Amino acid sequence: MTRQMVMVGFLQAQNCTNYPFSWRHPEARVDATSPEYYQEIARVLEAGKFQVAFFDDRLAMPDRYGGDHTHTVENGIRCVKMDPLPVLMMMASATQHLGLGATCSTTYYEPFHIARMFATMDLMTKGRAAWNVVTSVNDGEAMNMGRDSAMAHDLRYDRADEFMEVVLGHWDTWEDGALLVDKESKRFADAAKVHRLDHAGPFFRSRGPFTVPRSQQGHPVIIQAGQSGRGRDFAARWGEVIFSTASNIAVGKASYTDLKAKTTAAGRNPDYMTICIPVLTVVAETRSEAEDKMALLETLTLEVDELSLLAEGLNVDFATKDLDAPMTREEIDGISGFQGLRDQVVRDSGKSNPSLRDFLRHSKRGRPEGAIVGGPKEVTDRLEELFVERVCDGFVVAASHIPGGYADFVRYVIPELQKRGLFHQDYKGLTLRENLGLPRPEIGVWKT
Amino acid sequence: MTRQMVMVGFLQAQNCTNYPFSWRHPEARVDATSPEYYQEIARVLEAGKFQVAFFDDRLAMPDRYGGDHTHTVENGIRCVKMDPLPVLMMMASATQHLGLGATCSTTYYEPFHIARMFATMDLMTKGRAAWNVVTSVNDGEAMNMGRDSAMAHDLRYDRADEFMEVVLGHWDTWEDGALLVDKESKRFADAAKVHRLDHAGPFFRSRGPFTVPRSQQGHPVIIQAGQSGRGRDFAARWGEVIFSTASNIAVGKASYTDLKAKTTAAGRNPDYMTICIPVLTVVAETRSEAEDKMALLETLTLEVDELSLLAEGLNVDFATKDLDAPMTREEIDGISGFQGLRDQVVRDSGKSNPSLRDFLRHSKRGRPEGAIVGGPKEVTDRLEELFVERVCDGFVVAASHIPGGYADFVRYVIPELQKRGLFHQDYKGLTLRENLGLPRPEIGVWKT
Repeated sequence: MTRQMVMVGFLQAQNCTNYPFSWRHPEARVDATSPEYYQEIARVLEAGKFQVAFFDDRLAMPDRYGGDHTHTVENGIRCVKMDPLPVLMMMASATQHLGLGATCSTTYYEPFHIARMFATMDLMTKGRAAWNVVTSVNDGEAMNMGRDSAMAHDLRYDRADEFMEVVLGHWDTWEDGALLVDKESKRFADAAKVHRLDHAGPFFRSRGPFTVPRSQQGHPVIIQAGQSGRGRDFAARWGEVIFSTASNIAVGKASYTDLKAKTTAAGRNPDYMTICIPVLTVVAETRSEAEDKMALLETLTLEVDELSLLAEGLNVDFATKDLDAPMTREEIDGISGFQGLRDQVVRDSGKSNPSLRDFLRHSKRGRPEGAIVGGPKEVTDRLEELFVERVCDGFVVAASHIPGGYADFVRYVIPELQKRGLFHQDYKGLTLRENLGLPRPEIGVWKT
Repeated sequence: MTRQMVMVGFLQAQNCTNYPFSWRHPEARVDATSPEYYQEIARVLEAGKFQVAFFDDRLAMPDRYGGDHTHTVENGIRCVKMDPLPVLMMMASATQHLGLGATCSTTYYEPFHIARMFATMDLMTKGRAAWNVVTSVNDGEAMNMGRDSAMAHDLRYDRADEFMEVVLGHWDTWEDGALLVDKESKRFADAAKVHRLDHAGPFFRSRGPFTVPRSQQGHPVIIQAGQSGRGRDFAARWGEVIFSTASNIAVGKASYTDLKAKTTAAGRNPDYMTICIPVLTVVAETRSEAEDKMALLETLTLEVDELSLLAEGLNVDFATKDLDAPMTREEIDGISGFQGLRDQVVRDSGKSNPSLRDFLRHSKRGRPEGAIVGGPKEVTDRLEELFVERVCDGFVVAASHIPGGYADFVRYVIPELQKRGLFHQDYKGLTLRENLGLPRPEIGVWKT
């Protein structure tokens, strides 16, 4: 079978896309707390045959920078942050094929709760659900959830590993064919096909029996995005769709090869792991129109967007620091947030002691830098190159604004990709696994 | 204004209604894990102008009886138990006026999470959400959620009180009018109208700022169902819709009067607390047809339904006990489950040491005993009496099966109630508060 791309819409249940400037766009919708806002996104993505719409999440608004939320709220820097699940279900009701993923942290919930929630979503969407597994990095989140500070990096992942064992364990306790619903004999289900997990480990205990039968696709697809060494091991063990990064082709190829090798080493088939990288496209009928659109985006950004999001991502308040001074070894090692981001900046800047200015430049948080700008052919050429060179198997598509950012991509890029045979003409099945080319998981197949 | 009834549909995101026999009914739908099953219920209830559809919940399947789930699964005794939230959102997408409530426990979650989840639901339903606040009573739930046994009764309520302070506190931190979304000035919101809660108490710490603005109805409606002494104090302090019980008119009137008085004593307006009692109706065009329907229901019940649900409700495994022996004082005092149920059985049986048989007889769990059976006029007469005598302000309507149990009620009873002026002809507004006659809460009005 010809290898084809996977397209994932990168969504936020908040007042802006992942770019704070997006709400300031003249053509942006202003009703981001309404169901219609998300249902329009869903319809646009489904018209474009996207495999998945996926919600990022945090359990706090960014207020690490300066230790105050005034700038966050006034400038609309992700200050509204709704729970993705109710939002996602409104999108499910407006679509039939689009996969629907939500981020949910392993740090602050009980695995039984998450297993039941996502299994229910999977039944209510008829096998279109995905779970993006994350560990929570921010002190702001910790303080909302009854702790003083975020959990240490590697400990978070140890906990996450056991969390996965419990969730996947519960999902496997109802065998296919367990339901009988036989009114004649009054037998509802076959008890020989419903097992109790009886999990007891260092972080969690969960007995069962689980209360949700298997879905049309077996169980939800597992998405993962860890970029640190420990995060990549976790991804290789559990992830079916991986959100990775690639600052250039050589770095991206090396990362791709390494992740696939780690997956093989973990005893899994690397073809059943789809690696996607984020992409922002600014596309129009002609290159010059696209450049005008890009110029407009530049005028919408504020420096405080970048500062706030970087402080949040690194989990460090540098409001009173000199942006141009090289950071000390101690400061760099002390970063407890996204270590993958830290390592990327050290690598891409070529400095072992980058300054905060280097972090701002190379992390590109909050700004449209790195966008692929051009007409349909140019943008498609670039995506094709990344795909063919095996930097990735697909893309996590960000939007400059809603709905235009997605509508342009679907109007200009998708048809060109389809013409080249790089993207499917239509959905192949009803479940997300069918549309990702993933097999329906067998009971217990994850237990090695 | 004429006093009119409130109607609440009593739902379960499971394989049966609250009656295990319901799935065995010849006319029952067999697809209780599909969205269409719940969307049909939603449409029937909205056609009948029900104010609320409400989901009960437990975090475990009943397996207390005999310490095993074989009987639960084989007989379909609430063995499927999905998370109510994704189910409820599919119903929201199929309706425009129906209020939508879900049970969520204060025992196993962080209040920030629940506050954000329900505030999001409220926005996605445009002000139609309600939260049924419960404390978790079963060891089965505890063991799924990482504990050995359920929390002690009064301690659960102390925790629940503080939980409410945090949730309502967060809901009040975004003032009305905080959102500006002014692209011209690039001001997203007025930071002077977004406050940080900074809660620190014996059970919970939660800092904020909260990340969800106020909804069309201010915040979700609070439902409560506690029947014990401590539970009723809790209801009087927080509840806006109360699920109560009434084994006869005298007992029901006394309970109603007591709850309203407790509410006044708690400094609240008792008119803004709606007391509803559960009711199962078996209604048809004629009395004789209704009696035939009732006779059918009797053939569908199994003794194990009752035993299993009673063991679960009391949180006691009596599988090896003599059903006819009077329980000792120690055994009765040792019941850590629904103490309201225990007290009711002691009262209604007239015995200070009832036997398990008395519990089965008077708790009526799992059997259609106590159903109001008859033609439209007779059933309506009975509901009118309960309402006029102030045993209740409305009803929590259970269903013998899906969808027929509700469809019959909407076909035969609702029009008769409307003809007598006892029930609204149509929805008065778009939000649940408007349709319940509850005022939109002011910021901080709960802080006394």
